[in-house]
Amino acid sequence: MAIKTIINAAGRSVPLEINGQPVIPFKGVGKHRPEGGKYSPPIPTCSDYPDDGNKVVISLEEALRKCGLRDGMTISTHHHLRDGDLVSNKVFELASSMGVKDLVWFPSASFPCNDLIIKYLDDGTINRIEGSMNGPLGRYVSEGKMKGTAILRSHGGRVQAIQDGEVKIDIAVLAAPTTDSYGNAKGTGGTSACGVLGYAKADSMYANKVIVVTDNLIDFPCFPMEIEGNYVDYVVVVDKIGIPEKIVSGTTQITKSPDRMLIAELTATFLEKSGILKNGVTMQAGAGGTSLAIAVFVHQILKNKGWKSKFGFGGSTKYMVKMLEEGQMEFILDAQAFDLDAVRSIENNPNHIPYPVFNAYNYHSKGNLTSLMDIMILGATEVDLNFNGNVVTHSDGYLLHGIGGWQNCLHARNVILPIPLFRDRIPVIVDEVTTLCGPGELIDVIITERGIAINPLRQDLIDSVKGSGLPLKTLKELKDETEKICGKPQKPQFEEDIVAAIKWVDGTIIDVVRKIKSC
Amino acid sequence: MAIKTIINAAGRSVPLEINGQPVIPFKGVGKHRPEGGKYSPPIPTCSDYPDDGNKVVISLEEALRKCGLRDGMTISTHHHLRDGDLVSNKVFELASSMGVKDLVWFPSASFPCNDLIIKYLDDGTINRIEGSMNGPLGRYVSEGKMKGTAILRSHGGRVQAIQDGEVKIDIAVLAAPTTDSYGNAKGTGGTSACGVLGYAKADSMYANKVIVVTDNLIDFPCFPMEIEGNYVDYVVVVDKIGIPEKIVSGTTQITKSPDRMLIAELTATFLEKSGILKNGVTMQAGAGGTSLAIAVFVHQILKNKGWKSKFGFGGSTKYMVKMLEEGQMEFILDAQAFDLDAVRSIENNPNHIPYPVFNAYNYHSKGNLTSLMDIMILGATEVDLNFNGNVVTHSDGYLLHGIGGWQNCLHARNVILPIPLFRDRIPVIVDEVTTLCGPGELIDVIITERGIAINPLRQDLIDSVKGSGLPLKTLKELKDETEKICGKPQKPQFEEDIVAAIKWVDGTIIDVVRKIKSC
Repeated sequence: MAIKTIINAAGRSVPLEINGQPVIPFKGVGKHRPEGGKYSPPIPTCSDYPDDGNKVVISLEEALRKCGLRDGMTISTHHHLRDGDLVSNKVFELASSMGVKDLVWFPSASFPCNDLIIKYLDDGTINRIEGSMNGPLGRYVSEGKMKGTAILRSHGGRVQAIQDGEVKIDIAVLAAPTTDSYGNAKGTGGTSACGVLGYAKADSMYANKVIVVTDNLIDFPCFPMEIEGNYVDYVVVVDKIGIPEKIVSGTTQITKSPDRMLIAELTATFLEKSGILKNGVTMQAGAGGTSLAIAVFVHQILKNKGWKSKFGFGGSTKYMVKMLEEGQMEFILDAQAFDLDAVRSIENNPNHIPYPVFNAYNYHSKGNLTSLMDIMILGATEVDLNFNGNVVTHSDGYLLHGIGGWQNCLHARNVILPIPLFRDRIPVIVDEVTTLCGPGELIDVIITERGIAINPLRQDLIDSVKGSGLPLKTLKELKDETEKICGKPQKPQFEEDIVAAIKWVDGTIIDVVRKIKSC
Repeated sequence: MAIKTIINAAGRSVPLEINGQPVIPFKGVGKHRPEGGKYSPPIPTCSDYPDDGNKVVISLEEALRKCGLRDGMTISTHHHLRDGDLVSNKVFELASSMGVKDLVWFPSASFPCNDLIIKYLDDGTINRIEGSMNGPLGRYVSEGKMKGTAILRSHGGRVQAIQDGEVKIDIAVLAAPTTDSYGNAKGTGGTSACGVLGYAKADSMYANKVIVVTDNLIDFPCFPMEIEGNYVDYVVVVDKIGIPEKIVSGTTQITKSPDRMLIAELTATFLEKSGILKNGVTMQAGAGGTSLAIAVFVHQILKNKGWKSKFGFGGSTKYMVKMLEEGQMEFILDAQAFDLDAVRSIENNPNHIPYPVFNAYNYHSKGNLTSLMDIMILGATEVDLNFNGNVVTHSDGYLLHGIGGWQNCLHARNVILPIPLFRDRIPVIVDEVTTLCGPGELIDVIITERGIAINPLRQDLIDSVKGSGLPLKTLKELKDETEKICGKPQKPQFEEDIVAAIKWVDGTIIDVVRKIKSC
């Protein structure tokens, strides 16, 4: 049965229906206007909950049964336990043993530890994943093995979909490092501390049923209440929700590659010379090796100039914490902690503030944190000559990454992508991105080891670095240089079948991923 | 046109329709089951809000215009500025000057300063008040002068009505002592600090439009975000939102009446001898003179025994703060501060925690703080022989008080009413309450200056104080004693017209107030 497709405003062929549900094609940045009201979960009543507030049940299986787990339900989890998560897989192991079929897994992200989920995709427990598909999970999808069609959303798009009722969560299973028996929960404390639970708020507010799973039950009241017990149905206490050393890395590591270090240095110089970096600057960078190096360079510039960043938005790392502690950053607003220093800082520093993605990234809200950021440092698997970006597929066509907060972050004032010209001899700058994740009009600067390309739409930025001696080039020039070294890569071959849809921040479909052609 | 009435489960004649809307008669405690989903406010989009997050507009009038203020809308305000509130009246002054008619005022409470509102009830700007009507406002309603029918809800019933969509707030005008331009707001800081904004959360979450009014605009980020900027449309900066000395009293005052002091002492003795007061006890008392005296006695007992209260729920006062600071109370959870010591404590003591009424009191939630409380000290204007309580009308039939959190607090484990036998020679214990606000099955102990009556339903409590020497009596005995002194008061005379409806915590109608018969 052929699926009807249409060419969307980005020129991509997208379906009008996914998994039997109608969807809206991308209309252009800021063009789609939502209609109607937010999702309205069922009204509960206190008379169904214990007077003493003790919602502890004997096991996760018991909690799932009490939530009425059945075929076709949507189960959400968060990724704060990262590669040390012992809860998400367990849900589907239990569901499988209970004979439940065709579930939708709706995680806020997935990690290598979740590769085990393939077993439950294979045995029919899970129909599809709506969320990030990294590594083997992505490969599984690209090869057309998943029963349903994957839907990839940004972190902000995920909470928008929850709020708007595009995704109705039947059961949210939320791991929490510390909880009281009423279900109030936080990301600090205990042996599985992840620092902050910034990805759990929307799930807890809008899911029909909410289960909190912990290995550290404390007396009421647990605070700050990152998850509010008023939204929680059941609390489950287990031996271990996560493997501590895999939840946060002991230390996040700066790049050791000379090329990446060169890119980082060039980025810092660009930020300084363009005047974007200034006293009171607001900024966000990731936890990748290049981003961390940039953070260190920026910190040094702020120090030298006697400047202070107003705030940074986490994922937080020890490098941000250092800025905060040494006085070059006033506040860290934080939705997730990447290392132990960040966890410690959240617990102890009142200026290191939990700030949920629901508040930071939701485009269907009355404002957004990302548009307040002066400097946004992002990556990409591919950038094309129109500055369009791809973060989910590689040039071989395989779906290998989630979107993360990338699309949301494109709304910052200055979006800068420090990227290498090639990875494993595959050029990063291409004629046209394999998968469109972010429109070029939102991407301002590409910084590579051989030069800087500024989006012609940002004449102000071009003017700001005139005569600065910075190696300005066009994307075409950078691409040609790279192809001289690596050659022009072969285009991947796809079948017609759509295996994944890529949503834009407003819930519309910006592109799709098609099945890899089998050789 | 006669309004159809029905006898509800409490034996009261109540209408099936109020202000043209169908309503549900009270069915008994815990008997009504809500149907359907929570209210779903319109989905906003970031594209309608400024990228730089600056939502400041030039005046409250401008903000009201931008919110589309028009005839018939429902306007909510909170009462955190208490008798020093300079914002609520201003809204209706502006509305009146703009020629807007038939508004519904939906405050979380009203104070003497709000008596000015009568002007806007008279001139047709306001159709009715749904909220507490104290003093002159209540008299105005009782005399049948208000165009629409008043609806009185408990603090928890108010947030339940918001959440469930029984009341759809068109515009919430929320005064805030400190705000950033994005609309994040809190109760501390500035010259109008009220400590905490525990009554503003539901309004901000569910109102279609939200205006924050402040006299202390600070740089983003304002935290803790008691009001989240993500729900806020406009920010208005004015010279003064409140008169500081009327926002919180300099000090809350213990009773000086020997009779009340006797009641307080008897209450403390009862709490101790019955065993209700114990190590780890959870308790709540108000800010009235008798309650404060009880708090002081209880503090002394805890100290003598080396016990600690697990937590107390505010309204917070300096007497609770003293327990916290001296180590006899582990946490204060707080929705409103009553005095300056409480405001200071919230600002500085990490164990004094903002805890919104939306979380504490909403019966249509997954649990409630009140059912976790061991000791609940409450007042009443009347109690009848079936332990039923009245808090809104006096024995003369006039509506003179709001419900406050009283109904919600009835769900505590031990509900104790320390009340005088008479006020101004009018007996407090009566054959049948003038207005039923709380069913007797939820009221456990009445403590008066001449004896203690324990509800026969609480045989456990009766047993607990057997042989303790406490002056146990029946309500009948106490009533007879009082009538010997004061005589039996005349029953008030009412007309047929219903001027106010009293809601139970689940949104059903437990009773009504009828128009006072004109002499």
